[in-house]
Amino acid sequence: MGVLVGSWLMKVVFISSYILIQSSKAKAAAKTRHLKWEVEYMHWFPDGREGVVIGINGQFPGPTIRARAGDTIHLNLTNKLHTEGVVIHWHGIRQIGTPWADGTASISQCAINPGETFVYRFKVDRAGTYFYHGHYGMQRSSGLYGSLIVDVAEGEKERLKYDGEFNILVSDWWHKGSREQEVDLSSKPMRWIGEPQTLLINGRGQFNCSLAAHFSNSSAAPCKLRGNEQYAPYILKVHPNKTYRLRIASSTALAALNLAIGHHKMVVVEADGNYVAPFSVENMDIYSGESYSVLFTTDQDPSSNYWISVSVRGREPHTPQALTLLNYHPTSPSRLPTSPPPVPPRWDDYGYSKAFSKNILTAPGSPPPPSKHDRRIVLLNTQNYIDGYTKWSINNVSLVLPTTPYLGSIKYGLANAFDAKSPPDRFPHDYDVMRPAANQNSTYGNGVYMLEFNSTVDVILQNANALKENVSEIHPWHLHGHDFWVIGYGEGKFSSEKDESRLNLKNPPYRNTAVIFPYGWTALRFVADNPGVWAFHCHIEPHLHLGMGVVFAEGAHLIDTIPNEALGCGLTGKMLMKNNNNNNGHN
Amino acid sequence: MGVLVGSWLMKVVFISSYILIQSSKAKAAAKTRHLKWEVEYMHWFPDGREGVVIGINGQFPGPTIRARAGDTIHLNLTNKLHTEGVVIHWHGIRQIGTPWADGTASISQCAINPGETFVYRFKVDRAGTYFYHGHYGMQRSSGLYGSLIVDVAEGEKERLKYDGEFNILVSDWWHKGSREQEVDLSSKPMRWIGEPQTLLINGRGQFNCSLAAHFSNSSAAPCKLRGNEQYAPYILKVHPNKTYRLRIASSTALAALNLAIGHHKMVVVEADGNYVAPFSVENMDIYSGESYSVLFTTDQDPSSNYWISVSVRGREPHTPQALTLLNYHPTSPSRLPTSPPPVPPRWDDYGYSKAFSKNILTAPGSPPPPSKHDRRIVLLNTQNYIDGYTKWSINNVSLVLPTTPYLGSIKYGLANAFDAKSPPDRFPHDYDVMRPAANQNSTYGNGVYMLEFNSTVDVILQNANALKENVSEIHPWHLHGHDFWVIGYGEGKFSSEKDESRLNLKNPPYRNTAVIFPYGWTALRFVADNPGVWAFHCHIEPHLHLGMGVVFAEGAHLIDTIPNEALGCGLTGKMLMKNNNNNNGHN
Repeated sequence: MGVLVGSWLMKVVFISSYILIQSSKAKAAAKTRHLKWEVEYMHWFPDGREGVVIGINGQFPGPTIRARAGDTIHLNLTNKLHTEGVVIHWHGIRQIGTPWADGTASISQCAINPGETFVYRFKVDRAGTYFYHGHYGMQRSSGLYGSLIVDVAEGEKERLKYDGEFNILVSDWWHKGSREQEVDLSSKPMRWIGEPQTLLINGRGQFNCSLAAHFSNSSAAPCKLRGNEQYAPYILKVHPNKTYRLRIASSTALAALNLAIGHHKMVVVEADGNYVAPFSVENMDIYSGESYSVLFTTDQDPSSNYWISVSVRGREPHTPQALTLLNYHPTSPSRLPTSPPPVPPRWDDYGYSKAFSKNILTAPGSPPPPSKHDRRIVLLNTQNYIDGYTKWSINNVSLVLPTTPYLGSIKYGLANAFDAKSPPDRFPHDYDVMRPAANQNSTYGNGVYMLEFNSTVDVILQNANALKENVSEIHPWHLHGHDFWVIGYGEGKFSSEKDESRLNLKNPPYRNTAVIFPYGWTALRFVADNPGVWAFHCHIEPHLHLGMGVVFAEGAHLIDTIPNEALGCGLTGKMLMKNNNNNNGHN
Repeated sequence: MGVLVGSWLMKVVFISSYILIQSSKAKAAAKTRHLKWEVEYMHWFPDGREGVVIGINGQFPGPTIRARAGDTIHLNLTNKLHTEGVVIHWHGIRQIGTPWADGTASISQCAINPGETFVYRFKVDRAGTYFYHGHYGMQRSSGLYGSLIVDVAEGEKERLKYDGEFNILVSDWWHKGSREQEVDLSSKPMRWIGEPQTLLINGRGQFNCSLAAHFSNSSAAPCKLRGNEQYAPYILKVHPNKTYRLRIASSTALAALNLAIGHHKMVVVEADGNYVAPFSVENMDIYSGESYSVLFTTDQDPSSNYWISVSVRGREPHTPQALTLLNYHPTSPSRLPTSPPPVPPRWDDYGYSKAFSKNILTAPGSPPPPSKHDRRIVLLNTQNYIDGYTKWSINNVSLVLPTTPYLGSIKYGLANAFDAKSPPDRFPHDYDVMRPAANQNSTYGNGVYMLEFNSTVDVILQNANALKENVSEIHPWHLHGHDFWVIGYGEGKFSSEKDESRLNLKNPPYRNTAVIFPYGWTALRFVADNPGVWAFHCHIEPHLHLGMGVVFAEGAHLIDTIPNEALGCGLTGKMLMKNNNNNNGHN
């Protein structure tokens, strides 16, 4: 992996000074963007085999939202599923002042009932590459996702220099429907969903054929595509000697991925909506919940096309590499590259992955994190059993979301809506993270970490051995409502004595998603300055389904009006209806 | 078909006088039966192949409710589905005074949200054979059903003479899940769900094998069963020379069925919870939504066992006959009958079916229907297109259920909850029911037939040609909240002049479900004496899904308190929450 960090690269990548203050003129130009979406199941061919996806307005993936920083999104979401509720989470949007619009069922709102329309109204306050996805049951696995791209405000100049851009949303796809997957995961003994059948690039993958069959030593047949198939690859058409911005986000249910553009270096410039110190790579890792921008220059022979590949990382891959083409003008897009697709790093080369993650540092000029933390929460990630059911737990609590959304029950101080006792801030001192637990049993819970408003919180995500000996997995953790600074990675068990001084408080990256590596820890710092209730969880959907998450709450007294529509279920629904006795109520 | 109607049979079947008044002593003994149910998806082998069913308390079919007339059922239903709402309809229970407990989503209540508990509290006022099932989307097809048997009140004597009884709930099963089926049906062009893979007797069927393989000319392998499989047949164990009551209800999604007990005659004695004039048959038809009791006597050679068969009627069968055994004591249940399974009547022998249906007449002594009707509603059943989607329509309106339950919106007079205009009471005079319509297009609607309280209503269900030439199907229509008298069947188009005088007002059967035969009509009469809002629809679930139903409302001003929990969605939810501005609401 070629890594180049230097001021010359900064100059190539960025236009001028690193700190740009949005002008008030730009803010005045902010728009409200009105969108009207209908969510419904539909037939689709994500990978050449027909399945059922959740589509939006007849599209899969859902429509790309494109807005400018400072705009307000005003989105009427109508649920056209027959019997299921639905919500949509706007991944990376911090929902400052609108915590009820975060789109997390049981946390920020009640699921929208079939036939009903809910209005998501929120500000996209910052340029960057984001996406959205279902956050109820395993609806993300059913294909409920799409891109959300925020450009700099009207009148502002984008700091990055490029001539054109592309946007890629990667995902993984199973032939078994998500209802069956949920039942499998919830069974005793648990039935694991297994590896995805296909990786999708902008919702398009090839299951029964390969674009690179002429190179492959596999038995896959060459794809016969006219180009108008729902699973025909999304081809990136470029002109020679230009610089392009490639935006990449991952909404995979499970897969950690590695992306490469054959024969082209990429310069990483953005992560999760924040500029990073640019560095050059041959290929890049991307975990579920992350987004990036890279710049690449079309400096190769224009009479050829080049592979763009997406491959599985971190789990023994049983899923073919996803492929599409970088198509140089005026070469025909039907001309396949003359060299084989990029070879990804070995799936279990964790050193390679760690090096990539550690290379991500904030762009110079970004404000550093607070130098001290007010509270440190250490979260032990373990795989457990509860009554013979396989679960994931954090500090021995496996999260089972309550029926009443926390946002309402906390704002109104409703007792019995969730566990009154907060989960623990740490795990037993003598827990051996390198071995299967002596006692593999865990408990269900739905208590909340109550954070002091405006306090600085450190979270140490502590990985451990899973149920089986010599197994420890990668987990990408995603925080709602905030970005955090990733102030450190380490091996084994975190120790304040030993590791404190090695934390990076100078130029840590500012992100909303960070991974823990096998048998390691990752240290995060954030300021609890966004009144609301916020999920913090492993972004692997089946892991969250099995309890791998926690809930943070802060500034409850500052939470503004929550639309009744967000609270019409559970105890908040009962509360809001209680003064209306429908006994006498003719009108 | 042997049909015997005679007073001698009455004497054999019934114990004493036909009119029994419930004693006040018996009423005093009525109980409240507390039940606690959890509904969830689970793996199951309904027919030897594993699938996913909706189970109740881990059982499929759901637990049998057994109560006595006059008892109150108090049932806590907790929805453990991950993302879907749920309701349960108590089929045949009229819900007098408790219309909110009828368990029809969008009509009597909002679907129960995941994680929530709803209390169904209602009186089972009358002995009989009933069942229950999901009434939301196509959850009935997913297996959400079970039996509901009401015995005569404590201290009352059952009129029928028998030594023992059995209960059979028949259903049909597809290997494709109901989510996919819903998507198929809602597609353009529509994809029909096709015939079921398997018929189930008490949730048990055999797909890959046959109990009668040694007779069959099919290639089905003999079943190798230990008896403890989830799909092992439910065997009826009898002693020789006894009389048994066999209760039968059909919750099929599609299939019309014919049931026979090899070498045994059956005497039909009950239909839909009402005693009928007994008549003897070799086999009997049963349509979805119907229930019956038959008596049979074990007068055959006890050294043999006998087939009980369930076969498809009315549609060209592609589904194997379901089989189980009548097992005579002390013969081993593993001894298969020596003669082949009963041969059902030809699937398209409609004359046979009509003869059976017309033989059903009320038990002597039952009160006759009112001699006159106050209103007559003629409902034309047609298959149509709307914007290229295939639908079923009634008087050219295809029912699309509203988001707000009618019961609430009608009680509270909420405008905009549904079409203000009632659908038409009749169809164009010159419509030719024998041919495909000149204009096959229809419209969506959700208006309500507002019935005058206590008025007598006639409904003429008028069948017609479907979209394709020379096709007209059987539809079993089920009325909620009432029984009706089936006062006539006829061929072609109903004509008041010609057919009025031929209606049976003397001894028509009193039922909640009645079929229309191809190209024919069926006349029903009922008294609109049950304050509430009531579905009346084809009981074929995909037909209802495609719009084949209407809604009746009566006595809105007499509707008693509706639990808020039933109304926390749509406009009633908004209304009940409107006085509670959650802006200021700390407590």
